[in-house]
Amino acid sequence: MIRIAAKPVLEVRRKKLIEQTAQLKSATGRIPHLSVILVGDDPASRIYVQKKGETAELMGFTHETILFPEAATPAEVLACVKKLNENPAVDGILMQRPLPKQFNEKDVVFWVAPEKDVDCLHPENVGLLVNGNPRFLPCTPAGVMFLLEHYQLSVEKKTACVIGRSSIVGKPLAALLLGKNASVIQIHRSTPNPKGLCRQADFVFVAAGVPALVNADWIKPGAVVVDVGIHRTADGKVIGDVAPGSLDGIASALTPVPGGVGPMTIQVLLENTYQSCKSKK
Amino acid sequence: MIRIAAKPVLEVRRKKLIEQTAQLKSATGRIPHLSVILVGDDPASRIYVQKKGETAELMGFTHETILFPEAATPAEVLACVKKLNENPAVDGILMQRPLPKQFNEKDVVFWVAPEKDVDCLHPENVGLLVNGNPRFLPCTPAGVMFLLEHYQLSVEKKTACVIGRSSIVGKPLAALLLGKNASVIQIHRSTPNPKGLCRQADFVFVAAGVPALVNADWIKPGAVVVDVGIHRTADGKVIGDVAPGSLDGIASALTPVPGGVGPMTIQVLLENTYQSCKSKK
Repeated sequence: MIRIAAKPVLEVRRKKLIEQTAQLKSATGRIPHLSVILVGDDPASRIYVQKKGETAELMGFTHETILFPEAATPAEVLACVKKLNENPAVDGILMQRPLPKQFNEKDVVFWVAPEKDVDCLHPENVGLLVNGNPRFLPCTPAGVMFLLEHYQLSVEKKTACVIGRSSIVGKPLAALLLGKNASVIQIHRSTPNPKGLCRQADFVFVAAGVPALVNADWIKPGAVVVDVGIHRTADGKVIGDVAPGSLDGIASALTPVPGGVGPMTIQVLLENTYQSCKSKK
Repeated sequence: MIRIAAKPVLEVRRKKLIEQTAQLKSATGRIPHLSVILVGDDPASRIYVQKKGETAELMGFTHETILFPEAATPAEVLACVKKLNENPAVDGILMQRPLPKQFNEKDVVFWVAPEKDVDCLHPENVGLLVNGNPRFLPCTPAGVMFLLEHYQLSVEKKTACVIGRSSIVGKPLAALLLGKNASVIQIHRSTPNPKGLCRQADFVFVAAGVPALVNADWIKPGAVVVDVGIHRTADGKVIGDVAPGSLDGIASALTPVPGGVGPMTIQVLLENTYQSCKSKK
């Protein structure tokens, strides 16, 4: 079984991004700048945000993290986002999720200007993506596609099953797969017979957010399986949406958790930020 | 076999829209206004545009059709759209497709302001739709859903196969189906075994744009089939993407062509225009 690990993919893509960033700087004086907004004290969010900043620095970017207390009002955070939208030195703006409950996601997706929305969450960017003309790539779904590309696992004319329909993963991933000429089966919690549909797929993308949901019953022998889930068990282990060990001798290729899809997300975020910097007028 | 005809559905929905329009007028003085832009002399487009205007009048709307010659420049048409965007008396703007080849669809989708984009083609409106929070409904796909609703054919927890992946029908229809808890199989010209995948579906939506593509080989006995295609044969007959007569005794329900999906599109367009007028500030 091929282990679809992120490490060799990141080695190649990071090296390239570092070079491109240095070239852009020497040619134009521009340095990609990422601004991250963190509201509240969620410990996992703090770690993610720190990791984003560290990796941005490694690439040669500048970055800042703007902290708001848990009780911050939407109006004050929006005022900050507006300033960043207007600041020509800022190339990418990311609002770390989850946001406290006084924030309405339906409003918040409109805050970051589409041209700086490196998380690809603004409806305009979602629409451009769905219509096959993306401004930015959705971070986790594109990370998945980069993994497959590196391991030369082509979805062209294959059947792909996407388990999950979130705005962050399931839906944009289905759009990317369709754009690569896969036939797409999208299933979710309201699918009465998910295993039966899933077993027909050559590629399975598990983004259900349910620990250890998928096992051999779901998978056609020889299928490629991408596990987008990440969960910490009661005894401190990190597992995905695929039951650990359950696909040995079944799947032809599988992403490990951790070390598979997870680390790709930041890479796409930074590639988007670089693109934003490079293409600005 | 149930014949999923538009006529009874339109009778109900038109009556309601006429009433709502009259109420809006008497309560606020507002009358929904639709502006249609037609570039060039395509005879089919002329007929469609005329029909839209006539139906708008029937509903009690005001409307106008703005004609440009085939050789019109994108700049002059855009200038016209901008004026309509800024005119508070205009509630909906439709640019009739196809446009002459000097127009780049990737640019044109941005022209009509999202708040007046009653055709639901602006990327922002596509993104809102995909994320389950639509501003306007996509005309043909929503027309399909209204047909199913009227005939009490619920896709909830059913398997739906969408044949085609256009921006106008296949993709937005898949989004609506997913939002109604269907499991969605999306197939297209690059699907090696379309019949095998299609035969698993309880609902089949044929939007391939290929005359008489689908026959009994594609359809599970008892499935509901919606034919979005419309073509004129060499001998002057109007047919759809389903081979005429091929599903007798196979499908449990089928949309006729003509008289099925086609007439629903204008209805959704006008309902969108009404909504735009009603909700404007």
